[in-house]
Amino acid sequence: MAQITGKATLLFDRPPRIIGAASIVGSKESDGPLGHLFDCIEEDPKFGKNTWEEAESELQLRTARKVLEKTGLTEEEVRYLFAGDLLAQGIATSYGIMELQIPLFGLYGACSTCGESLSLAAMCISAGYAGCVMALTSSHFASAEKEFRFPLEYAGQRPLSTTWTVTGAGAFLLASEDFLSSSPSSVCITGITTGKIVDYGVKDSMHMGAAMAPAAADTIARHLHDTGRTVEDYDRIITGDLGSVGQIILKDLLREQNIEPGDRHEDCGILIYDPNTQDTHAGGSGCGCSASVLASYILPKLRRGEWKRVLFLPTGALLSKVSFNEGHSIPGIAHGIVLEHC
Amino acid sequence: MAQITGKATLLFDRPPRIIGAASIVGSKESDGPLGHLFDCIEEDPKFGKNTWEEAESELQLRTARKVLEKTGLTEEEVRYLFAGDLLAQGIATSYGIMELQIPLFGLYGACSTCGESLSLAAMCISAGYAGCVMALTSSHFASAEKEFRFPLEYAGQRPLSTTWTVTGAGAFLLASEDFLSSSPSSVCITGITTGKIVDYGVKDSMHMGAAMAPAAADTIARHLHDTGRTVEDYDRIITGDLGSVGQIILKDLLREQNIEPGDRHEDCGILIYDPNTQDTHAGGSGCGCSASVLASYILPKLRRGEWKRVLFLPTGALLSKVSFNEGHSIPGIAHGIVLEHC
Repeated sequence: MAQITGKATLLFDRPPRIIGAASIVGSKESDGPLGHLFDCIEEDPKFGKNTWEEAESELQLRTARKVLEKTGLTEEEVRYLFAGDLLAQGIATSYGIMELQIPLFGLYGACSTCGESLSLAAMCISAGYAGCVMALTSSHFASAEKEFRFPLEYAGQRPLSTTWTVTGAGAFLLASEDFLSSSPSSVCITGITTGKIVDYGVKDSMHMGAAMAPAAADTIARHLHDTGRTVEDYDRIITGDLGSVGQIILKDLLREQNIEPGDRHEDCGILIYDPNTQDTHAGGSGCGCSASVLASYILPKLRRGEWKRVLFLPTGALLSKVSFNEGHSIPGIAHGIVLEHC
Repeated sequence: MAQITGKATLLFDRPPRIIGAASIVGSKESDGPLGHLFDCIEEDPKFGKNTWEEAESELQLRTARKVLEKTGLTEEEVRYLFAGDLLAQGIATSYGIMELQIPLFGLYGACSTCGESLSLAAMCISAGYAGCVMALTSSHFASAEKEFRFPLEYAGQRPLSTTWTVTGAGAFLLASEDFLSSSPSSVCITGITTGKIVDYGVKDSMHMGAAMAPAAADTIARHLHDTGRTVEDYDRIITGDLGSVGQIILKDLLREQNIEPGDRHEDCGILIYDPNTQDTHAGGSGCGCSASVLASYILPKLRRGEWKRVLFLPTGALLSKVSFNEGHSIPGIAHGIVLEHC
C-alpha cells in the first residue's frame, strides 16, 4: 500500500485524491492578501452564537457542510472524520461536528493538527479502509487568546514576535481513485513524513515561531533524507505558522544542514495577513491558518498545475496554559504532507 | 487489507498482533481487586516530580519504557506512537514521551483514547505502514481533578454517581505477523468499530457514566449490526469506565434494542476498585482505567485462551471545564476493538 522509507516517511502506492476543499474565515482574514480566495467570510466574530467556543464550533460545522456542498456529497458518504482544534479537550470539534454523525477520530497536534489529520486520512484511504473521509481543523482568535493567554478584555500588549491566531477553518475530502471518477480534482497526497517532538527550550509563549521552527527543520531534513530528494524536487516548501521571525530561524537551522530552500519556502502565517496594514506582527497562526491557506491558495495552484509538487508542513506548539505557568518550555511538532498535481 | 462492513466497522484481513503490554498504576489502584496484576506500582503520587502534570508525564514515559523492556525492543524499532491523555492540549503526552523521539500522532478522545489509539495503531499495522507501533494512554487522579473539577485542597464532596479517575497508564506494542516471529503473544485485533458522538443531554460532570452509556450502547449496537454477530459471539463485552451506575443505564439502553449482554458485560471502572472498601463510589474512570485493565487483566485471559473473543469499548466524555461552565451537555464517544485469542 505504501513504500516505507527511512524513519518516518510513507510514499503511497495508491495516492489518495483531495476531491474537495473548503475554507471559512473571519473578517480580519478577509482583509488580508488572500481574502478573495476563501469560500466564505463571516463578519460576526461570534458566528451568531453566545460564546467564543460556540463560535468556533459553528465555524467548524459550517466549513464541513461547505465542503460537502461543494462536492455534492452527503455526510453519510463520508466514512470517517479526522478532526481537531486548539481548545482544551478539543471542544470546538466535539460540539461542532456532533450533528454530522460521522465516526470520529479526535486529534490534538496544536497548529500541526491539519497535517496530522491529512496524514491519517491519507493512510486510511490508501489502505482501502474507506471510499471517502474528511479532515477538518479550526482555530478562532478569541477562543485561542482565552485558552492560551488572556481574555481579550485585558487588552494585553503583544511583542513583535507574536503571531495572531487565525479565525478560520479548512475542511478536506480525501477519496480513493475509484470514488467519484468524474471528480475534477487533480491533487493527490503522495506521501507523508510524520513529525516527532522537538524542544530547543524556548519558553516564551509570545514567540511560537521560535518554538516551532526546530520541529519544522527536523521534519524537512528528515523528509529529504528519507526520500533522497532535494529542495529542488519541490516547487514550494510551505510551513504552517512560523511567521516572519520563525522563518528566519528555520532558514538558519536548515542552513546548518546544507538545506537552502530560498524563495521556495513560504509560510501560511506570513501569507495570510498584510504585515504593513494589519498589525498582526509576525503573522498568523492556529490550526485554521494552515488549513484555510491550503484550501484557498495552495490546492488551487496545484490543481491548475502551476505547482507540480509541494511539501506542506503544518507546525504545532505543544504548550498549554498550565505547562506555561509551571515554567515548562514549548515543544514543537511538524507533520509533512507531499501534495502533487496528478 | 480489511473488510469494510456497515457504517463504521473494519474487519482486518491481516489482524495485527499485540506483542506487548504494560501497566503502571498508583497505590489506590494497587489496593484494588486487580492490584496483583499490574506490572509496577508507584506509591508516590507525584512520581518523584514537582507537579501533578509532570507526575502523569513521568507515569506515561515509564509505562512506555516498561513495554519496551518487556518485549526486548528499543524505541528505534517502534515506527509510530499513537498517544493521548485527558489534560488540556495533551501535555502529559507531549512532555512524557518527548525523549523517546518516536514520530507521534497525538490523540484526544477523553477516556476513549485507549480505544482510539488501538484502532489507529491496528489500521496502521494491518495496512503495512509499519512493522511495530505503540499505543499509549494515561490518566492521573490529581491532574484530572484539577483539570475538570476542583483542586484537591478544596476537599469537595463527591456524589455517589461519581467515578474516581485512575492513576495509571497502559502501553501496547502492535506488530505485523512477520515482526518478531518468536513472540509468545497470542492476542490479535481482528476488527474495530469507530464511535461517533452521542449526546443525550446529560449535564452533570459528576455523573459521567450517564453521559457515556448512550455512546457505548450505540457502538455496541452498531458493531453487532455491522458484523451480523450477537452478544453470544463474545466471551465478554467490556466497557471502559461507565461505573456501576452507567452500567445499569447501558443495559437499559441495550434492552430497548433487544441486546442482552447479561453477565458477559464487564466494565473496567467497576473491576479496578473494591466498592466496599475503597470509597470510590461508582468506580474508576480515565484513559488509564481501561488501558491498565486491558494490559493487566483482559489481555492475559485472552492470551491464555480463557476467553476467545472480547469486544473492548473504551468510553469517553467529551467535556471541558469551559464547556461545563458554559452550561453545555456532555457528549460521549466509544470506540470498539475486537480482541481475539490467536
